[in-house]
Amino acid sequence: MAAVGEAGDSAPGSSAPGHGGPRSAGTRRAILQAARAAFGAHGYDQTTIRAVAAAAGIDASMVMRYFGSKAGLFTAAVAGDLVIPDLRDVPAARRGEALTWSLVSRWEDTAHDDALIMLLRTAVNSEAVAVQLQAVLSRQVFEVVAALGAVNAGERAGYIQAQLLGLALCRYILRLEPLASLATADVVSAVAPSVQRYLDDA
Amino acid sequence: MAAVGEAGDSAPGSSAPGHGGPRSAGTRRAILQAARAAFGAHGYDQTTIRAVAAAAGIDASMVMRYFGSKAGLFTAAVAGDLVIPDLRDVPAARRGEALTWSLVSRWEDTAHDDALIMLLRTAVNSEAVAVQLQAVLSRQVFEVVAALGAVNAGERAGYIQAQLLGLALCRYILRLEPLASLATADVVSAVAPSVQRYLDDA
Repeated sequence: MAAVGEAGDSAPGSSAPGHGGPRSAGTRRAILQAARAAFGAHGYDQTTIRAVAAAAGIDASMVMRYFGSKAGLFTAAVAGDLVIPDLRDVPAARRGEALTWSLVSRWEDTAHDDALIMLLRTAVNSEAVAVQLQAVLSRQVFEVVAALGAVNAGERAGYIQAQLLGLALCRYILRLEPLASLATADVVSAVAPSVQRYLDDA
Repeated sequence: MAAVGEAGDSAPGSSAPGHGGPRSAGTRRAILQAARAAFGAHGYDQTTIRAVAAAAGIDASMVMRYFGSKAGLFTAAVAGDLVIPDLRDVPAARRGEALTWSLVSRWEDTAHDDALIMLLRTAVNSEAVAVQLQAVLSRQVFEVVAALGAVNAGERAGYIQAQLLGLALCRYILRLEPLASLATADVVSAVAPSVQRYLDDA
């Protein structure tokens, strides 16, 4: 395996993410920052690993070592802050509301809204990004649900994703009315009991 | 206004759909059939009104008269058979299930699944198509909900769309697991009570 800092040529697929030698949190952050700027300015198709690497001041092979593929880099860059709260700290009957609030309030913020739109638009059009999105959602939604100890955590997480991504799709991307114009608190009160059902029902 | 059958040149925006003289159901069907084939083969961006008109054996101005715009033609062609059952014929407590079944069972059919994927993919990337999709959903979901006489039919329809389009997005387009592999009946039993809630709750 190449050592960190080696300036070899780009070799897509040469190493899976999570392998290939020591990492640095600073390098990872620098890559993600350059990637967010590049994907934001040029979109997924027009952005290259090489351009992101150049902007971050490192070699393209390093980007591959940290993120595995362009789809992996893209998803980490735009979905990185979809952090779900630990629901074990929330009273059982309020968990649907806490989960719904945490995502909706994030999406109401324009900067995150933009990232979400780019993520879903690209995932709908790129199977590689859809696969990466699944990995992110699985890590974030599934793990939070599984930590509650419920049976069928995978299915519950799947239904919760369908409910909340559907809300994001209709309210923020397709901007279907009247849903797009309703107050945030009203949307959360309407949708949270469905999320709670997916957490609770047998 | 031009008479039906007149062979004028293409004049985008020359008349809103619903105006411009008599129509024929046969001409409409022929245009939709040609449009489905063209959009299916070449996608939204690469398909022209002129090519659809040529395939249907009529002038492009006729296509505009029937459908108003390329976005309107596309949405009518791919969403045309998203027919929702009249829920007034269904016992009140079974309506969520009936509505969920009618859409899911349609999407499980590969041909409809393809149309749905094309519709959502294109709507996510084209504001004009998103606007047309809203018109179709409004006509189909909203009218069925409004016919039940509930208050806030628009909001109820909006939440139902978010739930069911989210399911379509995650199960059929992003193909997120385990949701994509669950049995149809299990998916309907899990999601229908949420749809029922959006129909019933104050």
